[in-house]
Amino acid sequence: MTFSKATSVAGRGDGSYTAEIEPGWDIFGVTNGGYLLAMTARAMGAETPGRRLASVSARFVNPSRGGSAIILTESLKTGRTISIIQARTLSGDRPLLTSHASFVDEGTERPAFTSSYASPPDLPPVEDCVRLMPAVDGPLPPPFTSKVEVQLHPDDAKLDQGQPGRMPEIRGWLRLMEGELFDPYGIVLASDAMPPAIFNSDLPLGWTPTIDLTVHVRDPGPHEWLACRFYTRFITGGWLEEDGEIWDREGNLVAQSRQLALVSR
Amino acid sequence: MTFSKATSVAGRGDGSYTAEIEPGWDIFGVTNGGYLLAMTARAMGAETPGRRLASVSARFVNPSRGGSAIILTESLKTGRTISIIQARTLSGDRPLLTSHASFVDEGTERPAFTSSYASPPDLPPVEDCVRLMPAVDGPLPPPFTSKVEVQLHPDDAKLDQGQPGRMPEIRGWLRLMEGELFDPYGIVLASDAMPPAIFNSDLPLGWTPTIDLTVHVRDPGPHEWLACRFYTRFITGGWLEEDGEIWDREGNLVAQSRQLALVSR
Repeated sequence: MTFSKATSVAGRGDGSYTAEIEPGWDIFGVTNGGYLLAMTARAMGAETPGRRLASVSARFVNPSRGGSAIILTESLKTGRTISIIQARTLSGDRPLLTSHASFVDEGTERPAFTSSYASPPDLPPVEDCVRLMPAVDGPLPPPFTSKVEVQLHPDDAKLDQGQPGRMPEIRGWLRLMEGELFDPYGIVLASDAMPPAIFNSDLPLGWTPTIDLTVHVRDPGPHEWLACRFYTRFITGGWLEEDGEIWDREGNLVAQSRQLALVSR
Repeated sequence: MTFSKATSVAGRGDGSYTAEIEPGWDIFGVTNGGYLLAMTARAMGAETPGRRLASVSARFVNPSRGGSAIILTESLKTGRTISIIQARTLSGDRPLLTSHASFVDEGTERPAFTSSYASPPDLPPVEDCVRLMPAVDGPLPPPFTSKVEVQLHPDDAKLDQGQPGRMPEIRGWLRLMEGELFDPYGIVLASDAMPPAIFNSDLPLGWTPTIDLTVHVRDPGPHEWLACRFYTRFITGGWLEEDGEIWDREGNLVAQSRQLALVSR
């Protein structure tokens, strides 16, 4: 099943949508946050046809265990160039996440000035990377890793190994399965599809629940391969952030993401 | 009037709050986003007493022109350690911003592990910085700059000067007036209290409306002086992000912020 099918939503005509959380998009039974947010953003986007997702911010309320979801959207503004929608995603009457998003009219003329003061990750060709595959004899990597193709930088692929003094970082190529291309909803998935950067540190491996996640989509695509870099600069007081930069193969910025997470006990 | 007084809210007992947007907290008549979000977060915090703001994400819907505001809060979760609240801030029936936030029980034991892979800005002592003062003979800096004490790094204080090839950046000290200390709501203000980093670039000076703003409060304080660094790494397709890092005088991270903004036409 393609990603777009797995995150499809059915409108009920009143701003509410139903969706099925498909099996396999979970880590230890908890649905992946990027998957849930992509599905939610798709419902919000259906409320403002012809405009593409530019930015979405979510706060995760309760873990999802799969099954059916309901997405309640509300349109706050339909401006000349930007629409603003908010949504609550529920499992029954249990809130899974709350979110708000901006969608933009791509036809609007915008300043063409482009300036970049950072570089894409230095990734070897895909064929020299290490593909992340579900474990056959243990819990990690989880089956979720079969839902996308993750090709890790060889230097970042030795997860679960103490590397004192090194900034937690994961770099790699990412693409969807079955030849599907990344659109803005796929880019939301991409922002949360790799192992936590913190796995490449001297902290013990553990669950790092996401508190909030924001994704800024700079280039809607379509994109095949994405060059991704996720890193954590600050671990303080039981919190850590994970920043993501996602690039296309030509070295153009596709998206930025940031999440706040709790450090595993 | 202190900042806390200027952002005070009055509960109506049903999760809704009224507030007065005080004069002077605006730039060319449009209320500062950090001020509005601080006021909103204060209302959300009143719904979960004893817990402190850890993270808030806002999306700005319509510009505020001052006057009275109504903040409608809704509690989504009161967990063992974290509360999640969302809010809509209105002027009459016109939405100004929508937001969601997490509040944490400080009494909860958290992992003490601290690790930082970035450094505070290299700021000279306050007395060697350049104080930002309202212009007496022009529009910039706006009167808002008198609401806080901004002491800019001398290298970053020559706003409105083309500096081709230099990453847009603003560094400086910040403190509240009248001896007031920064609490988490003040830190939200701090995340949006300095001139845009983009003013230190070769782009023309102009309005850069904020689309969304997220603030992660790592250390609730109280703090007197904050060492701030705001910078923009990517200007693409008419969008730019502004990342903020806020530190205490001892070099500990106090907060991170990120906003997405539109490039001025």
